[in-house]
Amino acid sequence: MAPFHCLTFLTDYGLEDGFVAACHGVALQIAPNTLITDITHLVPPGDIRRGAVVLAQTARYFPPAVHVAVVDPGVGTARRAIAVAAGDSVFVGPDNGLLSWAVAEAGGATAAVSLTNRALWRDTVTATFHGRDIFMPVAAHLATGTLLARAGDALDVSGLVTLPWPESRVRAGGIGAEVLTVDRFGNAQLSVTGADAARAGLVPGVPVTLAWDGHQRTVAFGSTFGDVAAGELIGYPDSAGYVAIAVNGGSAAERLGLRPGTRVTLTITN
Amino acid sequence: MAPFHCLTFLTDYGLEDGFVAACHGVALQIAPNTLITDITHLVPPGDIRRGAVVLAQTARYFPPAVHVAVVDPGVGTARRAIAVAAGDSVFVGPDNGLLSWAVAEAGGATAAVSLTNRALWRDTVTATFHGRDIFMPVAAHLATGTLLARAGDALDVSGLVTLPWPESRVRAGGIGAEVLTVDRFGNAQLSVTGADAARAGLVPGVPVTLAWDGHQRTVAFGSTFGDVAAGELIGYPDSAGYVAIAVNGGSAAERLGLRPGTRVTLTITN
Amino acid sequence: MAPFHCLTFLTDYGLEDGFVAACHGVALQIAPNTLITDITHLVPPGDIRRGAVVLAQTARYFPPAVHVAVVDPGVGTARRAIAVAAGDSVFVGPDNGLLSWAVAEAGGATAAVSLTNRALWRDTVTATFHGRDIFMPVAAHLATGTLLARAGDALDVSGLVTLPWPESRVRAGGIGAEVLTVDRFGNAQLSVTGADAARAGLVPGVPVTLAWDGHQRTVAFGSTFGDVAAGELIGYPDSAGYVAIAVNGGSAAERLGLRPGTRVTLTITN
Repeated sequence: MAPFHCLTFLTDYGLEDGFVAACHGVALQIAPNTLITDITHLVPPGDIRRGAVVLAQTARYFPPAVHVAVVDPGVGTARRAIAVAAGDSVFVGPDNGLLSWAVAEAGGATAAVSLTNRALWRDTVTATFHGRDIFMPVAAHLATGTLLARAGDALDVSGLVTLPWPESRVRAGGIGAEVLTVDRFGNAQLSVTGADAARAGLVPGVPVTLAWDGHQRTVAFGSTFGDVAAGELIGYPDSAGYVAIAVNGGSAAERLGLRPGTRVTLTITN
Repeated sequence: MAPFHCLTFLTDYGLEDGFVAACHGVALQIAPNTLITDITHLVPPGDIRRGAVVLAQTARYFPPAVHVAVVDPGVGTARRAIAVAAGDSVFVGPDNGLLSWAVAEAGGATAAVSLTNRALWRDTVTATFHGRDIFMPVAAHLATGTLLARAGDALDVSGLVTLPWPESRVRAGGIGAEVLTVDRFGNAQLSVTGADAARAGLVPGVPVTLAWDGHQRTVAFGSTFGDVAAGELIGYPDSAGYVAIAVNGGSAAERLGLRPGTRVTLTITN
Repeated sequence: MAPFHCLTFLTDYGLEDGFVAACHGVALQIAPNTLITDITHLVPPGDIRRGAVVLAQTARYFPPAVHVAVVDPGVGTARRAIAVAAGDSVFVGPDNGLLSWAVAEAGGATAAVSLTNRALWRDTVTATFHGRDIFMPVAAHLATGTLLARAGDALDVSGLVTLPWPESRVRAGGIGAEVLTVDRFGNAQLSVTGADAARAGLVPGVPVTLAWDGHQRTVAFGSTFGDVAAGELIGYPDSAGYVAIAVNGGSAAERLGLRPGTRVTLTITN
């Protein structure tokens, strides 16, 4: 495998401890010329789905890279540690679904291994910090050109753990979806693409009715926050390609009580 | 334009999503050897003035650089996207005043363009994420040596949006100012420089009366926190060159209820 | 001194201001090819002990490096600024104990200087931001190969300020310790190593009684979170080599009210 210039890193380790930096240090010892970019380390502790969303919507903007992701409530138990080739990149992390949406986004797994080759691990491996002791050193070796096959036993890619995609429905005149995630601004991203919504007739200029948890509101459908007055709700195809609900200058999630997993419908208003 | 080794990045994107990293990834594809330093991404959402203060007080410590700043509540509307040459650096961002204090600090704009050359943008441009789709790719091209003039149509620098500087008054024996910003430690920075305050007679050793919102307190004027006992108030010329109010080992902003925009006077105590 | 490829940076500056980036910029002007890795900047303001713990448990994973740490409530007062050689690295910061546990971890100080050579400082030095004006520029010079002895006057290493290690007792059948620190996940790390605890008989599989502040609870002793059911308490040797108390999928610190400094005993349950 050709060496990778870039390595990205996503975890739920937070920023107040030295955990992230310890992993950087371990990588630097193995691959001093690889550039490490942190995606985020503020995934809520153990929230695999949130990690999977952020990874899938960020990794695609990088050059060919080794993407390391660790949200790993099962660390030290029997869950596998894996590296998966997809597109022109490699994804490294626990086999708990965390990598699955990014792998799909990259075109699907073309090869995968279970990280069983201890020669690529740190000399000492603890039971609770595989990010530092297994995932990062293996990833750093892959970044320097070590072949994927050398990292461990080949796996059947069809046997990798995948997260199910949230339920969604698209029909003429409307969509049904789940809130996939909520970003810093309180924009609620839905599990339906803007392209699918357009096929259902939801395009800028059309007023739609948003319904959730027994509530409903009329919202404008547009393309950016400024299409409505400050404080007004707007539905729009977001920068990742999904339909989202925002408030211009405010937080839609807070205003409406939307959370990841909330089921909503958006229907063209008659 | 000669290539730049450094690119800095300041936004209100937060650290919990993948927005910042997506921008890094886009830059890496264009300028793999440029070093990206994050200034901060914790500007409160849409707070242009706060972004402007932090950028102006940080950019000056860098070698010649492309400084990208995005606090952009008007993204996708008619506000211009600009690149401005000032001193030996270039500032890239929305034309909403965000860059203006840093540009002034760098000696004023010597040239500016409206970012209209789509050849430097990402192939796909969304309506809500110009940081990733326009500002960062253009900045990365400038970092590799692309001429400013190639980024778009020349602008008259006198027509750039500038933030007004907060009201301030300096007279013998005292100053009137606004709280410019509050830092992590709760130190309240005022809109008057230490040099101006010195001209008004506010120098270390002189006791002064701080008045704000109908309250007043006597504070020591000194040069560092340890000049007063733990828990005591102190006025001092801060590390950015402005007068600030602090509590040794505590938060002056919290103690006194000071916020950006609060009007205060500091008068030599008779 | 040979040049260092790596420089690490730990402070209590927070991430919302431009303080950290200003220091990066200053370093880049002196040592443009040195790689700067942030350890953390979220040490609670002025919490020297917390900074010392994180630095000591992180620096060891880096290649030879210049480690800069600034938690410095006495900035601008008579406390010394120092650089200390230990192992194959150099530690730079205030002489207030912050560096002492990391220096000990690296094998102890082999040489130290007081940073008195102003030729290595910034031209302008403020009274409240020695991270930017003294520590970082000196560290950047050391990273480029400047000899430690050139940074200032030699110090007797036995005169450096050291933090006392928290009280701890190990006897057959149990340990007495303080909570050393609490991490993002709410895991409470104790001031006794896993190796010492093992000598006292605390090994995976043995049930132990945790007592603190008049409370007591029986906890399993194991090796990773998944050794107990979700929501259950577990004691274990943690990834830094200390005994810790965790809740599988939750926060032990929150559940039990453990804080840094809380005294606890762990005794084999009869």
